[in-house]
Amino acid sequence: MHDDYLTGQLSRFSATLSLSAVPADVQRAARRALVDTLSVITAGGCHPLLQKVHSELCSEPGPAVIVGGRLVAAAAAAFANGLSAHVHDFDDTSFTGIMHGSAVILPAVLAAAAEQDTSWDDILLAFVIGSEVAYTIGDHLTHVHYFRGWFVTGILGLIGAAAAVSKLYSQNVDEISVAISLAAAGAGISRSIVGTDAKPFFVGDSARRAIEYAKAAGVGVTAPKDVFESPHGFASLLNDGILEMKNIPPIGTSWRLVDPGLSFKRYPICSATHTIIDQTAALVKEAGCTPDDIERIHCSIPELTDISLVYDHPQSVQEAQFSISFPIACAVRYGTLRLEHLDDQLVSDFSRIGTPWVLEKTIDPELSSDDMKRRYPESARVNIRLKDGREFSGFCGETYGMPNRPLSNSDLMAKASQCLAYAGIVDPHSVELFATLL
Amino acid sequence: MHDDYLTGQLSRFSATLSLSAVPADVQRAARRALVDTLSVITAGGCHPLLQKVHSELCSEPGPAVIVGGRLVAAAAAAFANGLSAHVHDFDDTSFTGIMHGSAVILPAVLAAAAEQDTSWDDILLAFVIGSEVAYTIGDHLTHVHYFRGWFVTGILGLIGAAAAVSKLYSQNVDEISVAISLAAAGAGISRSIVGTDAKPFFVGDSARRAIEYAKAAGVGVTAPKDVFESPHGFASLLNDGILEMKNIPPIGTSWRLVDPGLSFKRYPICSATHTIIDQTAALVKEAGCTPDDIERIHCSIPELTDISLVYDHPQSVQEAQFSISFPIACAVRYGTLRLEHLDDQLVSDFSRIGTPWVLEKTIDPELSSDDMKRRYPESARVNIRLKDGREFSGFCGETYGMPNRPLSNSDLMAKASQCLAYAGIVDPHSVELFATLL
Repeated sequence: MHDDYLTGQLSRFSATLSLSAVPADVQRAARRALVDTLSVITAGGCHPLLQKVHSELCSEPGPAVIVGGRLVAAAAAAFANGLSAHVHDFDDTSFTGIMHGSAVILPAVLAAAAEQDTSWDDILLAFVIGSEVAYTIGDHLTHVHYFRGWFVTGILGLIGAAAAVSKLYSQNVDEISVAISLAAAGAGISRSIVGTDAKPFFVGDSARRAIEYAKAAGVGVTAPKDVFESPHGFASLLNDGILEMKNIPPIGTSWRLVDPGLSFKRYPICSATHTIIDQTAALVKEAGCTPDDIERIHCSIPELTDISLVYDHPQSVQEAQFSISFPIACAVRYGTLRLEHLDDQLVSDFSRIGTPWVLEKTIDPELSSDDMKRRYPESARVNIRLKDGREFSGFCGETYGMPNRPLSNSDLMAKASQCLAYAGIVDPHSVELFATLL
Repeated sequence: MHDDYLTGQLSRFSATLSLSAVPADVQRAARRALVDTLSVITAGGCHPLLQKVHSELCSEPGPAVIVGGRLVAAAAAAFANGLSAHVHDFDDTSFTGIMHGSAVILPAVLAAAAEQDTSWDDILLAFVIGSEVAYTIGDHLTHVHYFRGWFVTGILGLIGAAAAVSKLYSQNVDEISVAISLAAAGAGISRSIVGTDAKPFFVGDSARRAIEYAKAAGVGVTAPKDVFESPHGFASLLNDGILEMKNIPPIGTSWRLVDPGLSFKRYPICSATHTIIDQTAALVKEAGCTPDDIERIHCSIPELTDISLVYDHPQSVQEAQFSISFPIACAVRYGTLRLEHLDDQLVSDFSRIGTPWVLEKTIDPELSSDDMKRRYPESARVNIRLKDGREFSGFCGETYGMPNRPLSNSDLMAKASQCLAYAGIVDPHSVELFATLL
């Protein structure tokens, strides 16, 4: 009976899993996600938004470390570190659910761990559980959930994180089921927040709520077992009634952390722009041209990219991170896009002065086909026409860092160094400390 | 531009309203809601669920009083008092949105007030603002939102409470707009929680989040202005795209606290059962029968009642509160339903031993017509057939306590006395103190 419901499947997996039963490649993937997320949390710690919320929203003292070193209560730490993890949009991405899982799950896990007598193995196991729960639900929901307009990161991140925290609190299968159920019953964040502070805010908020819902489960609060299947439940309300169970491997029979695996970003900007940046930079290099040589840049993109990049005329860094024009401008001018380019003045310059080329985009049905969605969800075709009449074209299916083109450990550590340096940490021992986690 | 969006309308109303501009009858309605909600919070304080969550979820010390007298942080107090306000399902109801507004709004307001240098006038004004914001949104959403399966109380309660708290924090129109927007972007609680602890839990959780989202607005977090209208916003995701603006009076041109006004409950159970209890008790009295004399009880109910009462065979007090069988059994046996009947043993007896009559229900389209929905959203026809062949029938359009049959102040105080006595408070001065608020 219990297992008839999705909460039953997820909580039984979570309650019974031990680290020895987690395959080595899954553990390795989790450790890499851990290093990547700690890197972006560190870089996020010096973002002005974190300074704003510090005093009012992360003030309760407690045992958990937040970025910068202050000790606060677990829920406050989960909030601050979750916000930091996503504030630069530099955190990992999964196409299972189309979401950033680690940014919610890891901060919640670390905060809960600080309250407990835990080992790194416990943390790793909880992180694996949270990730597999979140991505498996994403799989069952298909991509409908994202396309409808929900902020999958906050919603599935909260559910996964609640399961992870509940496991860390040594809760049993029924309690983990309640933690998952509370999270699934209370989750519903709209993607209207893209391009505002509210986006990273709700990553932190979800991490915080995960702590609280797991605590509630631990003291015996009850919640519906059929939270996903109920006529007034998750699938009905948040997924057009779709909860695809038959053709999706159940949790534990497939490890989403390695199949399909996570993408680690090289650019701190919405993942939908990464193939565009890669391809544009490559063509500019091939052409050996300057910005002023370019007459027109044409992008062909899949529907998913168009849905994600909603700001045609970005006015702030946050809007620029969900635009096409800003990443293309950076790709042409710098051949890349780095943390230091997330600068209001630069965005304002591009917006005010403009660029010397005409930018055109086409939403290409061919790039949005089911087959392409599966193979290359965020591909791009770029064509650059120079004023001298020459044209350069190319297609990029996936950026370096995506599951089929995984970032090497040394490039992961280079990213860690970049993030730490951005936060003013240049001590080589800190970078080495990150490396020991791999 | 700002006013083109619903957040603009709501926040401008909230920022500019002063108590002197609130009509006397609206202030009176608000004071009555305040007394009623304080009463049910007091009764809720001795519920076992509150004892469960006390230590883990309401522990941060601070300036705000929670039921029982302990002083905790504002967010923790909002959570505990919100949970207490709804835990017996004895709190007020509005058919604008189909929700319990005060249970979320008042605990958030009181908690925020404890942090500020506030007067009772400030509290009353903030409560009016929170209520009008929540119910006006409910009006714009029509009843679609409830019928789709959302927990309107937690969702619109959170938004109204965020506006109220933001006002109490003396925030300006842009900040109040952000508080409303964060609440609307992050709100999405499914009605799958009915019949479990999760229902009052999310009332408390919403009150708590209102405090946090208002604080976030106060430190300059940004959020989308078009949170209701965005293609990935509230109306699209949580209301089938419906945001009825043309035929609904804008906020400030109509006061929902008096038109249509709130219902104050006489029975601690889902409001959909109240006409059934009234009519059944009246017929039993008319027949002068004992339970054993009854052969069959037949209820004709509107669709709304059927949607709300989901447990045909309740196994717990919480399930019994969303059933037809339990309130009918109490009406036959006791002629009423009181706090002391919310007893697991009693529910278990009814479930195990059963009742001597056959219970039948019909969902009557005539009672669900648009006209009836407007006049009598939760009406009931009851027919009782005795074993001696006699039949007794009657129709109850609305229970005493509903807007058109308002509870007298003395009956409101009788309810307050019942609630206080249930919590072990029999000191007459306490009841008098409540009376001074009227």
